[in-house]
Amino acid sequence: MSVTKEQTNVEAQAIAAKKAAKKVSLLSTEEKNEALHVLADHLEQKFQYILDENEKDLQVGRDKGYEEAYMDRLSLSKERITDFADGLRQVATLEDPTGKTISNWTLENGLLVEKVTVPLGVIGMIYEARPNVTVDATGLALKSGNAIVLKGGSSALSSNKAIVQVMHEALGNTKIPKDAVQFIASTDREATQQLFTMKEHIDVLIPRGGGSLISAVVNNATVPVLETGVGNCHLYIDVEADVEKALNILVNAKTDRPAVCNALETAIIHKEWLEKNSEKLIQTLKEHGITVHGDETALKYIPNSVLANEEDWANEYLSLDLAVKTVNNVEEAIDHIEAYGTKHSEAIVTENKDTAKLFMSLVDASALYHNASTRFTDGGALGFGAEIGISTQKLHARGPMGLPALTTVKFLMSGNGQIR
Amino acid sequence: MSVTKEQTNVEAQAIAAKKAAKKVSLLSTEEKNEALHVLADHLEQKFQYILDENEKDLQVGRDKGYEEAYMDRLSLSKERITDFADGLRQVATLEDPTGKTISNWTLENGLLVEKVTVPLGVIGMIYEARPNVTVDATGLALKSGNAIVLKGGSSALSSNKAIVQVMHEALGNTKIPKDAVQFIASTDREATQQLFTMKEHIDVLIPRGGGSLISAVVNNATVPVLETGVGNCHLYIDVEADVEKALNILVNAKTDRPAVCNALETAIIHKEWLEKNSEKLIQTLKEHGITVHGDETALKYIPNSVLANEEDWANEYLSLDLAVKTVNNVEEAIDHIEAYGTKHSEAIVTENKDTAKLFMSLVDASALYHNASTRFTDGGALGFGAEIGISTQKLHARGPMGLPALTTVKFLMSGNGQIR
Repeated sequence: MSVTKEQTNVEAQAIAAKKAAKKVSLLSTEEKNEALHVLADHLEQKFQYILDENEKDLQVGRDKGYEEAYMDRLSLSKERITDFADGLRQVATLEDPTGKTISNWTLENGLLVEKVTVPLGVIGMIYEARPNVTVDATGLALKSGNAIVLKGGSSALSSNKAIVQVMHEALGNTKIPKDAVQFIASTDREATQQLFTMKEHIDVLIPRGGGSLISAVVNNATVPVLETGVGNCHLYIDVEADVEKALNILVNAKTDRPAVCNALETAIIHKEWLEKNSEKLIQTLKEHGITVHGDETALKYIPNSVLANEEDWANEYLSLDLAVKTVNNVEEAIDHIEAYGTKHSEAIVTENKDTAKLFMSLVDASALYHNASTRFTDGGALGFGAEIGISTQKLHARGPMGLPALTTVKFLMSGNGQIR
Repeated sequence: MSVTKEQTNVEAQAIAAKKAAKKVSLLSTEEKNEALHVLADHLEQKFQYILDENEKDLQVGRDKGYEEAYMDRLSLSKERITDFADGLRQVATLEDPTGKTISNWTLENGLLVEKVTVPLGVIGMIYEARPNVTVDATGLALKSGNAIVLKGGSSALSSNKAIVQVMHEALGNTKIPKDAVQFIASTDREATQQLFTMKEHIDVLIPRGGGSLISAVVNNATVPVLETGVGNCHLYIDVEADVEKALNILVNAKTDRPAVCNALETAIIHKEWLEKNSEKLIQTLKEHGITVHGDETALKYIPNSVLANEEDWANEYLSLDLAVKTVNNVEEAIDHIEAYGTKHSEAIVTENKDTAKLFMSLVDASALYHNASTRFTDGGALGFGAEIGISTQKLHARGPMGLPALTTVKFLMSGNGQIR
């Protein structure tokens, strides 16, 4: 493979980020917070320029006939830009996750051991068409003392470029070097792939977007990855489930925001409960326009349903479709989740505490709910202040990731000549 | 690629481990500790069988003419088996890392949020010819509520098989299912590679061994990896270094156990210090039989040295060879470590606290030493009780990894019908 100009550029940008990361890591909390306020103010001032550039992306989107939800995510407004700025100011209020002594002790020979939190270094952010990620991720990376390399989706290219340009202008008036925020402007696929293997310059890759983006990164990257977001979430309605709680939670988890990763995709229903409560269930589903893809038993009780196939169990619908699997007991529910879940958020509705405890012990997921909606798996809802994504992996960080997920540790040993 | 019998077996073993992991995760601390004692006692009882099987590996090793250090690592004795057993008993005394509530809070709507530690699930251990890893890793995995899939080096095959057989016999008298300890007996390369991509059944891979083993795993695995062990460790002797401390630390870090990963490989020496102290340095190096591979300036002051080339800076000698790089200041030392270090253990000797602080802030490694030997980067030496390896990566765990590195977290939410 010959080295193209783009590739050289991407590597040069990553190297510049690495160098800048050292400088950011030495800044005080106050210096970083001040910089976030400067960024916020400047984004608000330059809102018109950003909107003009955003219009170019929207025009391309309209020409290509992108669907409404997609256009909505892409579209900026003065209010949205104010939200971005307020997000940065909010991050400035959060506790600095670096420089904290997690533990310290002295060995018998007098050697002092300190375990302290430090920035990861350079964060590689690979994301789809949401310009807000450009601002949010930058704010979180800088607050935690890191540099960031941004690779946004090509459909938001003009918007992202404008946002980064405005942020670069602002950084000129702060202690943070411009090089700490790198934007890969190339829409070349190879530019993205190059980031996958830059272990020397990039400390972690965070993909945010659909399942195919995430698996492309996970399967091809040698840089460590913080896997985020795909949520095939289940709600198990136990035989001892309270009817009102079950239906309220089902509706909320399925319909509040169907396109997000903590939305419900499959209801697993105990057969006895279904038999007893099918009328209320049918009415609720109808009221909220939910289409059921059920197994054969489900179809017996819920008319106008589609027969589910293997794909339905694995599918993240992100719509008002709902898979319905019927079971004879909690163990079958757990097995189904084991087979098809994505280890994101799983819920049980039951009045039986032992059943709930078994479910929460045995189901392998980042967030387990007893008698509550899966929609709470969210840094904001849980009070984290901000979120870089929701980890569905087990190593390093699991569930909603706030600022501490962007740090690592160092062991610092201070002695006066100790040898072993 | 056609599916061979071996491949089917490996997958079946991984699936069995996953199933067993659920059972282990539900055991109490007492049940796990009791099992570790049963394992320890049985290993001691069956020492002769293990030694007989070990002799087969040794015979093959002798026939193949393996070098002495290698044969030493492979060779077992009654005392070594007692050490294995004592290691398991020691792990039984350690705090259970699972089931700990890291934090808990209640949202305004009354939803209780608990962040608790849980086992990772199934640990895949890929290692070279040290039969002790078979016992150590099993003990740590079980104590932390995990199952383990062991893939040891082929030169220790008979020894490892015997150890696992004895452990399986012992597990029959415990609450831990035998399936929680799987040993891949195939020496087929594909068997190992199959473990690399079993994301559904294996939660983490831990390679322990030389650099080529580790990079094979890191570069090819889609299962998350805990990278361990390669240590190209540096000692920077500053212009303000105390001579006695510097020489003592150099000798200890280089010669105490040259073959381990926290041994010194490159001394970076300030030119002025070298000029002033070359006589003492030469004498010390000579006394301890250390061969210097130095840059041109180093060669001027240290006679009988070899001129270092690019490879010397990157090399983990694991012998009494030492690369010597001369610099004009601490910044050059930091840059050299940035270019060639493996983020393991790096030390500075200086009486200047500001210089030490700069070094410890800017050098990116798991363990940084001021006026002490790199040899302390070790779970045992630091008081961790036991160690599964030394992480040279930044995510999840960094530096010596004790039991907590084998856990992850779950968010458990308990409500009474909360929706968003």
